[in-house]
Amino acid sequence: MRIDQKASGVFAIAPTPFASNGDIDFDSIDRLVDFYAKVGCTGITALGILGEAPKLDADETLAVARRFIRRSPIPVVIGVSAPGLASIRSLTRRVMDEGAAGVMIAPPSALRTDEQIVSYFASTTEAIGPEVPWVLQDYPLTLTVVMTVSVISRIITANPSCVMVKHEDWPGLEKISALRKLQREGTMRPVSILCGNGGMFLDFEMERGADGAMTGYAFPDMLVDFVRLSALGERGAAHDLFDAHLPLLRYEHQQGVGLAVRKYLLRRRGIIRDDAMRVPFTKMSPAAADEVEYLLSRVARHDTRASF
Amino acid sequence: MRIDQKASGVFAIAPTPFASNGDIDFDSIDRLVDFYAKVGCTGITALGILGEAPKLDADETLAVARRFIRRSPIPVVIGVSAPGLASIRSLTRRVMDEGAAGVMIAPPSALRTDEQIVSYFASTTEAIGPEVPWVLQDYPLTLTVVMTVSVISRIITANPSCVMVKHEDWPGLEKISALRKLQREGTMRPVSILCGNGGMFLDFEMERGADGAMTGYAFPDMLVDFVRLSALGERGAAHDLFDAHLPLLRYEHQQGVGLAVRKYLLRRRGIIRDDAMRVPFTKMSPAAADEVEYLLSRVARHDTRASF
Amino acid sequence: MRIDQKASGVFAIAPTPFASNGDIDFDSIDRLVDFYAKVGCTGITALGILGEAPKLDADETLAVARRFIRRSPIPVVIGVSAPGLASIRSLTRRVMDEGAAGVMIAPPSALRTDEQIVSYFASTTEAIGPEVPWVLQDYPLTLTVVMTVSVISRIITANPSCVMVKHEDWPGLEKISALRKLQREGTMRPVSILCGNGGMFLDFEMERGADGAMTGYAFPDMLVDFVRLSALGERGAAHDLFDAHLPLLRYEHQQGVGLAVRKYLLRRRGIIRDDAMRVPFTKMSPAAADEVEYLLSRVARHDTRASF
Amino acid sequence: MRIDQKASGVFAIAPTPFASNGDIDFDSIDRLVDFYAKVGCTGITALGILGEAPKLDADETLAVARRFIRRSPIPVVIGVSAPGLASIRSLTRRVMDEGAAGVMIAPPSALRTDEQIVSYFASTTEAIGPEVPWVLQDYPLTLTVVMTVSVISRIITANPSCVMVKHEDWPGLEKISALRKLQREGTMRPVSILCGNGGMFLDFEMERGADGAMTGYAFPDMLVDFVRLSALGERGAAHDLFDAHLPLLRYEHQQGVGLAVRKYLLRRRGIIRDDAMRVPFTKMSPAAADEVEYLLSRVARHDTRASF
Repeated sequence: MRIDQKASGVFAIAPTPFASNGDIDFDSIDRLVDFYAKVGCTGITALGILGEAPKLDADETLAVARRFIRRSPIPVVIGVSAPGLASIRSLTRRVMDEGAAGVMIAPPSALRTDEQIVSYFASTTEAIGPEVPWVLQDYPLTLTVVMTVSVISRIITANPSCVMVKHEDWPGLEKISALRKLQREGTMRPVSILCGNGGMFLDFEMERGADGAMTGYAFPDMLVDFVRLSALGERGAAHDLFDAHLPLLRYEHQQGVGLAVRKYLLRRRGIIRDDAMRVPFTKMSPAAADEVEYLLSRVARHDTRASF
Repeated sequence: MRIDQKASGVFAIAPTPFASNGDIDFDSIDRLVDFYAKVGCTGITALGILGEAPKLDADETLAVARRFIRRSPIPVVIGVSAPGLASIRSLTRRVMDEGAAGVMIAPPSALRTDEQIVSYFASTTEAIGPEVPWVLQDYPLTLTVVMTVSVISRIITANPSCVMVKHEDWPGLEKISALRKLQREGTMRPVSILCGNGGMFLDFEMERGADGAMTGYAFPDMLVDFVRLSALGERGAAHDLFDAHLPLLRYEHQQGVGLAVRKYLLRRRGIIRDDAMRVPFTKMSPAAADEVEYLLSRVARHDTRASF
Repeated sequence: MRIDQKASGVFAIAPTPFASNGDIDFDSIDRLVDFYAKVGCTGITALGILGEAPKLDADETLAVARRFIRRSPIPVVIGVSAPGLASIRSLTRRVMDEGAAGVMIAPPSALRTDEQIVSYFASTTEAIGPEVPWVLQDYPLTLTVVMTVSVISRIITANPSCVMVKHEDWPGLEKISALRKLQREGTMRPVSILCGNGGMFLDFEMERGADGAMTGYAFPDMLVDFVRLSALGERGAAHDLFDAHLPLLRYEHQQGVGLAVRKYLLRRRGIIRDDAMRVPFTKMSPAAADEVEYLLSRVARHDTRASF
Repeated sequence: MRIDQKASGVFAIAPTPFASNGDIDFDSIDRLVDFYAKVGCTGITALGILGEAPKLDADETLAVARRFIRRSPIPVVIGVSAPGLASIRSLTRRVMDEGAAGVMIAPPSALRTDEQIVSYFASTTEAIGPEVPWVLQDYPLTLTVVMTVSVISRIITANPSCVMVKHEDWPGLEKISALRKLQREGTMRPVSILCGNGGMFLDFEMERGADGAMTGYAFPDMLVDFVRLSALGERGAAHDLFDAHLPLLRYEHQQGVGLAVRKYLLRRRGIIRDDAMRVPFTKMSPAAADEVEYLLSRVARHDTRASF
């Protein structure tokens, strides 16, 4: 069960659940997996940037990845970004042995020139081996590495095992159009494009040719419905659903406090037991909790899943 | 007519209108000013980051500032950020002589430590003179300078002529609460807080204690209504209005292409004649224009101002 | 008297001399020019990064440029880097009318991708006009823009009026070799390469194929001798001279305080009247002055120009 | 054998030696340790930035640390900087159990404000435990985190287990003077200051009050002599020795290629068997090798250790 360039739908970015004492909460991992699968997600991505991956040591990382993979009936992609190739290789081998569907790699923030970026991903492909399917994470806002369409195309062409782009350039609508144009012209081989960025532009990203979402919004069930409606061409219904969630989705998308909001919502929905994070983290204030509850109540007028 | 710490309402961030040949379109400046005043804006900010200020030479800068100031019945703040103090001083003197209500200053991106930031604004106050009211622009996403609540408080305390914070930290709700708390406790003197960031969090920023908005969304008339409703405590009505615009407001808020969207909308509304920009600029694609029209049609279901 | 791709020797980066009250000291400009010309410099660069250019307003900038140009019997290049094209165009036109030999342009620090950089310099060439010879400043340490050999070559090829590279990548020896190789192979047309970076690697930069120096070390007379010896192939004598100055040259090369050291030395040599700088500046401490005097005394054992 | 605030002399920054096939060369670790101890180094720092630490996976990291620690008769400090606290804690515990003398921690590059920096080191101290002595690495050029004297003083005061500053701010002479002044005034408790930055300013850093060097220059024996001469007040002899090495030391200090130069020299001196690096690395060109040999021959005229 490995990802390939035909992947579509919703890959949920999973948080790593902790108990209030900081221990990993493995039971909540099980519940997360079961929930994602039940609501129609087509994949799960664990240990991404919002999965608090750097807050785990090497043994914990492996244990978390293993739990997600073993429990999941749908493909699991593991984030393996690290400062050095040895760690990337070592973690990739272990999670692929466990049954991961692929790995996701982000460019280190020191990369600047086109050549440095292209050459970096040649090295990572060599390090993990050419048979491991991987996802290119394009997230300049946080990573500070800017990849042009031409650079992404060069990476995809040079590395047949790169089967997916996690698109979270911002703004990025034209980038999707440009990548799809290269594909249609035969300049670039087909690749799956799943959109991150908290889903903030998913309404139009789908219309520009994306295959779906890879993001962690606490209502992946809404994302599943939205992607389905959008793929069916039900434009009005799709936007109505999206717009009903946008005020909350935007609130969750805040840098820093966003993860706290996401965990708060997943706890409120009964999926994870605790919304604890490991240090360093940004905590929600009581005022923020009130705001989230108010937004929930407003979403609930349109979508009963927000009412609980 | 100078700004002070009691400023509130909506200060519109004005674009600089150009003709298609790149000339400054002074008639459109007049129409912008008339429009802002008519719909109830309480101030105008010209030559900000989205006012394409760096694309004007020194003579043009002064000519644009003068036109805004002379036409306007409401206070006009001029952005005077520049790489050096001599330019800041020189432009400030000229626009204040013309009748500007104050100036806005952003920290240069090389600043890193608290001491560097505090010391920079001591220098700018000295350069422009202690009698010129000025607005502190707190915009880390673009400027890369991070100012803590404690640093902002030190700047306000040390510079009595700093009367306003243009708040566009992101996320920034807690920052507003923290600044207001310092004020209530008497640790920091009162200051006006107007919110930028395209208005993306204005709904809750008002509830946290902001005095209004300073942003350039192409429907400042909606912002005026929203700020009024929010100040009156009409929470539901305020959020309904805000949420109706959020999909479009978010679209306009994109980095890069956002200015093109804004000018497109102001042209469509008949306020500026042309949506031309000076190089370098990011252009809207035909697909983007279609998306904006679609969003307009959706906003128009709730707000007739979007129907034209 | 315009620069072209055959420029060689030493272009002195001139500081802008101020009186202790902050006024521009025009008499010291004259003395600087006379000194540079007398000791054999082949050009002067005014209003560069270490020329405190951002601390001048528009009128002062023009007055300083004019004084350098009118006094100088050797070519004068003017730094015209600015946040926007309008300012670059406007200043370029004025200084070329005054008789400047060319202008120097640095990439703005927001540029990231190869395409952005190449496209920026297409815009600047168009803005200043294709007949104005210009110098490409390659200074990633301070500007944060990294230009590969391939990008520099594309810029040179696309812009025939780009006649010189101010080379101050660090480290940069291989870059010079690579550029010269492209030239020999006929892939890139010939271009003058003058080295900055305070002269820290000038000993080997000359051996790699540079045409000379463009830097502001307070002993340009030493640089002139060194470039001559190196061009003559007097390797031992060249390195002996260079190494005798290296401890002091390194001291002057410090970021921040370096300009104070440079002005201190030029004042001590009787060339500028005052070593004042405009705010913001980093001042030399008494301990630093003692260190500079000690280094001078050590240089003086090998080079009598350091004894005064 | 743990480090404390009285540490002085030369702590050699050790490279990690690899065989040409990329394997760790443990025998060369032994030879490095023996060499450092024999020539009078007072400590060794392994797995620093120039120790290629990120290129090792978790098991290799521990194996390298263990080999250094077990072989060494002098204190060994281990670099434990990592993206997250869990990895820092986990590695610290293991190396301290093996007998390390302390650990070195650098601030992650995302830190900006004074509060963020101070708070980060409170977290690291808590993570590693208050009994583990640690070294604060102050290296803004590479890490992009700028720590003022006041921030360093707050960190030292708040964390009694912070016993040493690895000083590599650049320029940094005034910082040493300022820290020593705080100490003399009783505002800050005593702390060891060892200087990095390739040794580029060690001549004056010692005179400003540093306790020695922590750097990887391939002639640590010269550094040992220099520190001794400087501590004895033999100013002329100390500077003569330093200046004789400065052209080579500067050459080794280049970003990127510097590590290749360092390994080349250590191989040429017979201390490590191979000068291989793991990818990604910057290789020395044949021209660079010739330049290093030329510099060696020039140093050898003054210091026979450079003749072999």
